[in-house]
Amino acid sequence: MLSGDPEELVEAARAGDRRAIGRLITMVEEGDPAGSAVLTLLYPQGGNAYVVGLTGAPGSGKSTLTDGLIRHARADGSTVGVLATDPSSPFTGGAILGDRIRMQDHASDPGVYIRSMGSRGHLGGVSAATPKALTVLDGLGLPYLFVETVGVGQAEVEIVESADTTVVIVIPGWGDSVQANKAGLLEIGDLFVVNKSDREGVDDTVRDLRQMLEMGGARSWQPPILMTVATTGAGVGEVWQAIGRHRWHLIDHDELEPERELRLERELRRALASELARRAEREAGSNRFGTVLQRVTGRQLDPWTAARRLLDELD
Amino acid sequence: MLSGDPEELVEAARAGDRRAIGRLITMVEEGDPAGSAVLTLLYPQGGNAYVVGLTGAPGSGKSTLTDGLIRHARADGSTVGVLATDPSSPFTGGAILGDRIRMQDHASDPGVYIRSMGSRGHLGGVSAATPKALTVLDGLGLPYLFVETVGVGQAEVEIVESADTTVVIVIPGWGDSVQANKAGLLEIGDLFVVNKSDREGVDDTVRDLRQMLEMGGARSWQPPILMTVATTGAGVGEVWQAIGRHRWHLIDHDELEPERELRLERELRRALASELARRAEREAGSNRFGTVLQRVTGRQLDPWTAARRLLDELD
Repeated sequence: MLSGDPEELVEAARAGDRRAIGRLITMVEEGDPAGSAVLTLLYPQGGNAYVVGLTGAPGSGKSTLTDGLIRHARADGSTVGVLATDPSSPFTGGAILGDRIRMQDHASDPGVYIRSMGSRGHLGGVSAATPKALTVLDGLGLPYLFVETVGVGQAEVEIVESADTTVVIVIPGWGDSVQANKAGLLEIGDLFVVNKSDREGVDDTVRDLRQMLEMGGARSWQPPILMTVATTGAGVGEVWQAIGRHRWHLIDHDELEPERELRLERELRRALASELARRAEREAGSNRFGTVLQRVTGRQLDPWTAARRLLDELD
Repeated sequence: MLSGDPEELVEAARAGDRRAIGRLITMVEEGDPAGSAVLTLLYPQGGNAYVVGLTGAPGSGKSTLTDGLIRHARADGSTVGVLATDPSSPFTGGAILGDRIRMQDHASDPGVYIRSMGSRGHLGGVSAATPKALTVLDGLGLPYLFVETVGVGQAEVEIVESADTTVVIVIPGWGDSVQANKAGLLEIGDLFVVNKSDREGVDDTVRDLRQMLEMGGARSWQPPILMTVATTGAGVGEVWQAIGRHRWHLIDHDELEPERELRLERELRRALASELARRAEREAGSNRFGTVLQRVTGRQLDPWTAARRLLDELD
C-alpha cells in the first residue's frame, strides 16, 4: 500500500515507483491541502527540466512523433515524462477504435513516465492542472518533459505557453483549414513538422508554411520546417536535433531564464485568479447568491452586473 | 457619426443600423462601464431568441451549412444573427486562401447580422464574450442566433453550452480522429450532421456515429443523424426541420426554460469568477505582488501557495 504522506510518496517516486508519481500528480490536480504540500515540497527542487510542447490537430500523428522523440531521448540516456492533454490521443484512451500506438512499448521502461490529463474539465481544468503536474515531474528530476495538446482553443495555447520549445505538427493536404490553423499556430511554433510527408501535397504544405513564416518577419530564431514520417521514424532524429539546437539558441541568447521567469509570473497571476474563483464559488453557495440568481433568471438583472454587486457587498 | 450613447445606439440598432449593432457588441466585449450599461439595458428585453450552436472541426463545412440554414430561416421570414468563433472560419477572415463562401451574399441582407468573435484572446476571451454578444442580439429582438465553434477545447464547450440546440458536424473518412472527437462531442450534440456526404466512407461514419449514440443509452430526445452536401444545399432543409423538432421537444417536455435557467446560473458563477480575476489583476499591480514574485522566480515559494498568501493578506 502507498502511504498518503507527501514526503514518503516523493521518496518512493524518486526510487522509480510509478504509482507514487501518479498519486502525487493526482494530489496536485485535486488542489486539496495534501496537493499544496506536494507542490511546496517539490517546487524548490525543480527548475531543471526542459519542457517540449507538441501541438497538432487530432490525426496529425503527434503521439507517434512523441513516441519517436521518447526513443531518441532514451537513446541519449535521458529519462522522460509525458503529459497528454489531447482527448483524441491514444495516450488518453481517446482513440477508441484502436490506434496501434507503439507508446505502449514504453510501459515497461522505468525511464518513461506517461500521464494522460483529463480533458473537458471544469473552468481552467487542464490548463490549470498541467503546470502543477509539470512542477511535480520537474521536482522529481526528470530532465525532459513532453506536453501533447490539440492546439486549438485557449486552454491549449495556455498549455503550450508552459513549454521551452513548441513543436507544431501539420499534415499535407488539409487545404484551407491548414492555412487557417497556421494563422494561430505560427506565433507559437519554434519548430514546424510536416508529418505524413510521404503523402501527396507535402510540397504545397511546406511552401505555404514557409511563406507564412516569412510574412512574420525576421526573428532571432528562424523556426525550421522539418518533414517526418513518424510511423517509420523517418525524420524524427532531425526533429530531436532541432529541439536541441533551439535549446542552445535560447541559452546562448540569454532567453531561457527570462522566458521562464515570465512564465512563472503568468502562472502566479493565473493562480491568483483561480484562487479568487474558488473563493467566489464558496460565496456562490450563500443565501445572497440565491436571491440575486432569482433576479437574474427573472430577467431583472444581468449576470455581469449581478456578479459585481455580490462582490461589492463583500467588501 | 454614431453616438457612443447606449440608448441611442440601441435605437439605431433596432432600426437596422448594422454599425450600431457592431458597436454595441464591441462595447460589451470590452467590459467597460458603457458595456455594462448596454447589458443592463438589453438584458431585460431578451430571453426570446432561439440559440443554435454549430460545432465541427476546421474543414467540416460548418460555415457553408450555417449559410444554408440562414437561407431557410430567412425563407421562413425570420431575421438571424451569427457569431463565428472558429479562427479558421471564412466569417472570421481565417481562411486566408479564400473559401468562396456564399456567406458574403448575406452582406446586403439587412435581416442577417454576422459577427466574427476574436479567438485566441486572453483568459476567458471568447467564452466570456460570446454570452454577452448573444445578450445584445437577443435583446435587439433577433429570433434566431447561430453560434459557430471549432468544437475542441473547453472554451468551445462553454460556448456550445450557450445553445438551445447543438448541431455537431462531422465529415466522412476521418478515421480514428473522428472516433476520438465523437467521444467528447457525443455528450453535447442534439443533432449530428455528416456533411460532404457525397464522399467515400459516409456509410461507415454514419454507422459508427449510430453505434456510439446507442452506447450512450436511452434519452428522452434521440439525436438524429442527418446527411448533407452543404455546398449544393442537399439535406440542409432536413437539418433546419430537425432543429425545429428539437425546439418543440424541449418545449413539450418543459425542458427549455429550466435549461436556460441553469445556463444563467452558470453564467452568474462565471461572471463572479471573472470579476474576481479582474480584481486579482488589480492586486497583481501592487508592491506586495512584486515581492512575492521574486520569491517565486527564486524557487523559494510555488505560485499556488504564493497566490493564497497574497489573498489571505488582503482579508
